[in-house]
Amino acid sequence: MKYAVLGTGMVGRAIASRLVELGHETMMGSRSADGGAEWADGAGDLASAGTFAEAAGFGELVFNCTAGSGAVEAVTSAADALAVKVLIDVTNPIDASGDAPTLFTGIDDSLGERVQAAVPSARVVKALNTINADVMTHPGIVPGEHVCFVCGDDEDAKRTAVELLGEFGWPPERVIDCGDLTGARATEAYLLIWLKMWGAIGSARWNIAIERGTD
Amino acid sequence: MKYAVLGTGMVGRAIASRLVELGHETMMGSRSADGGAEWADGAGDLASAGTFAEAAGFGELVFNCTAGSGAVEAVTSAADALAVKVLIDVTNPIDASGDAPTLFTGIDDSLGERVQAAVPSARVVKALNTINADVMTHPGIVPGEHVCFVCGDDEDAKRTAVELLGEFGWPPERVIDCGDLTGARATEAYLLIWLKMWGAIGSARWNIAIERGTD
Repeated sequence: MKYAVLGTGMVGRAIASRLVELGHETMMGSRSADGGAEWADGAGDLASAGTFAEAAGFGELVFNCTAGSGAVEAVTSAADALAVKVLIDVTNPIDASGDAPTLFTGIDDSLGERVQAAVPSARVVKALNTINADVMTHPGIVPGEHVCFVCGDDEDAKRTAVELLGEFGWPPERVIDCGDLTGARATEAYLLIWLKMWGAIGSARWNIAIERGTD
Repeated sequence: MKYAVLGTGMVGRAIASRLVELGHETMMGSRSADGGAEWADGAGDLASAGTFAEAAGFGELVFNCTAGSGAVEAVTSAADALAVKVLIDVTNPIDASGDAPTLFTGIDDSLGERVQAAVPSARVVKALNTINADVMTHPGIVPGEHVCFVCGDDEDAKRTAVELLGEFGWPPERVIDCGDLTGARATEAYLLIWLKMWGAIGSARWNIAIERGTD
């Protein structure tokens, strides 16, 4: 199985490096063909770089790890190559232009849904956007039964994503299914409280676990 | 110290009963004078009932536990009696009228801020709205170091609220300070992912804990 990662930022590099570490051929896509070249040069024989469209054409499964503000443009530029493929959308619609961070999508919309609308033939699964890049790719660096979330309209695509999360180190019982892609409204809005907890903790290497009582 | 609880629903009854259990005189307020009478009749000598305004006049510290849709109207009807008092707002702006629950406040607003705007002379602290009523009042029924959140514009009021949370069973190190009252945008938006986790767990007796890694 070949993989593509759209985006050259912290999240894109973390996921692409993890895929290579797991033995998968991985192409990093960026707006310009050489945006991912530095990563590819340092990441070994399994790593390569290209444009968004080239990477999406290469990968059988594609991660969208662009900045939120560029997410729709990135997948649109690779729309033909994304047809039918599983597209794991890790983006967050953060608007940091004001006094306090907010979501540019509002409350009744999500970036996951906008990405799906931009490439209707792709099978979008929203995942991993609730967790720091180091923790999402190596969940074992945080102890305990902490959790992540998936949602999407295609059940097969969601199963494929959960299997890949298993390779990253997420056992299925710690992957919470938030239903169809409108679940992205919940996992993206969670970013607001994530930012508050991050501020209180003073580090991004943490995650939430669910503690259960008895009924 | 005398307490008031505005609202006769599950959350209002749980908090009012907990206050009585802790030995505090508590008046439950409702739109009509006898809305809280059934609770008061069964809750012992420390319990009483009245209108929103009567309860707010009785309590030195007031909880707002009304339905989200009625929160602003309730505190407005008791505005004179709420002046200067600590008002712990536990409400959530849930709009359940559509296919899926959403927040009627949107993403750049919160019910906590609307309550504060309705009674500017009160000192509003948003708290406990992220947790089931049984767990918020008896956190020990859920194991582990699970957390709750407070925010508000008045630091003294926030300290008072944290002390009272300590009486409920929340040690201060498990109360996360989300800053000023705009933090309510984060703790209220969390409801969307709370609902997803609730659906996955199949019980409301749980809460989130923070698991920390090493840097």
